[in-house]
Amino acid sequence: MPGSRSGNQKAVVLLSGGLDSATVLAIAVQQGFSPTALSFDYGQRHRVELDAARSIAGEAQVSHKVIAFDLRQFGGSALTSDIEVPKNREHADMASTIPVTYVPARNTIFLAFALGLAETIHAHDIFAGMNALDYSGYPDCRPEFVEAFEKLANLGTKAGVEGQHFTIHTPLIHMSKAQIIQEGTRLGVNYALTSSCYDPSPAGLACGQCDSCLLRRKGFEEARVPDPTRYQKK
Amino acid sequence: MPGSRSGNQKAVVLLSGGLDSATVLAIAVQQGFSPTALSFDYGQRHRVELDAARSIAGEAQVSHKVIAFDLRQFGGSALTSDIEVPKNREHADMASTIPVTYVPARNTIFLAFALGLAETIHAHDIFAGMNALDYSGYPDCRPEFVEAFEKLANLGTKAGVEGQHFTIHTPLIHMSKAQIIQEGTRLGVNYALTSSCYDPSPAGLACGQCDSCLLRRKGFEEARVPDPTRYQKK
Repeated sequence: MPGSRSGNQKAVVLLSGGLDSATVLAIAVQQGFSPTALSFDYGQRHRVELDAARSIAGEAQVSHKVIAFDLRQFGGSALTSDIEVPKNREHADMASTIPVTYVPARNTIFLAFALGLAETIHAHDIFAGMNALDYSGYPDCRPEFVEAFEKLANLGTKAGVEGQHFTIHTPLIHMSKAQIIQEGTRLGVNYALTSSCYDPSPAGLACGQCDSCLLRRKGFEEARVPDPTRYQKK
Repeated sequence: MPGSRSGNQKAVVLLSGGLDSATVLAIAVQQGFSPTALSFDYGQRHRVELDAARSIAGEAQVSHKVIAFDLRQFGGSALTSDIEVPKNREHADMASTIPVTYVPARNTIFLAFALGLAETIHAHDIFAGMNALDYSGYPDCRPEFVEAFEKLANLGTKAGVEGQHFTIHTPLIHMSKAQIIQEGTRLGVNYALTSSCYDPSPAGLACGQCDSCLLRRKGFEEARVPDPTRYQKK
């Protein structure tokens, strides 16, 4: 992770509206970047995260773009079809199996759009919240995937070919959820605005039982930071 | 290029509606694959190519999906903004400079969606019409880009991690436009259905002067195949 920068370099930050990406946005700002946040309206069942993303970008006073496309045309994931979201899985299971909430090639698609936006606005830095420690076992959150995308970015763009270097920053990749929350809290992230649940109620209340809720709740406990999440009553 | 296959293996074929991708679709069928064609409604000024794609997929009797998103939100290309499409460029210029018709990260985005669809339908073969010989100098048409994407595909997917191997087939990559047309003609491709022009008239007539029209016209001449393209009167 490079230190603070004096300039006002542009960057693109993938912003889902969850805890991780909100923290990444704060880190990019703290490092002196002038970010454009990018979110996706892809047919996700937890579409309420887009409202969270808007609030987070608004509070951070950064520009925000939302690209819409419909991955329900493909299906194949609990997040984009009627497959049920698993509840109350053990932490060990999350790390060892790829669950049905995996959306085929999602991060490849998201990073591809981020690259297109970055090249267009003459940014060469892309920030994303992948995490390989407290995560759901998704293959497209691993360091080797990020490295392969960075290589692709530099081969497949005009800017890359002309000598600019695109960097994919994943400052959270080796942090625990508790460490992420501690770092974000230090940077003033308002986690009450963030939404992590895969299966929220229509009013946006978190289920408290999906992988994402379980990891989030455990993170707040271990970080000894009050959890501002509004959970559904069981 | 592997030989004919006896099975009925699924594949995803990127189908723009142009000459190259129509040929690739025929090659995939000839190799024994059962393709799903995939097109994109991305805000391109030559949106008439989508009608061509539908006709080509219909004639080939393959299933066809169209994913819509709006790259005009990014701009930065003559194909997605008000930048003028260059006309009557010399062939040598096309090979040496990246023109304003380049759409930032377009093939990365297209291949990312193809990968998502492929993984969902349990296909492990993706066909695309990249060509590094008679082309417009786009960085994301080069063999090293395709290789980098194939590597990414196998790192970033559940199927890849679980031991399936994704292959990105680019059977045209080292062929001249004339060779492509000869191969397609041999396979029965109806090039009258295809649309290559970057700047067609509202009625879908080709301008005859953009890079894509010039390369196409030269290809038919060199292949000694009658050119079925309907050009605008000058």
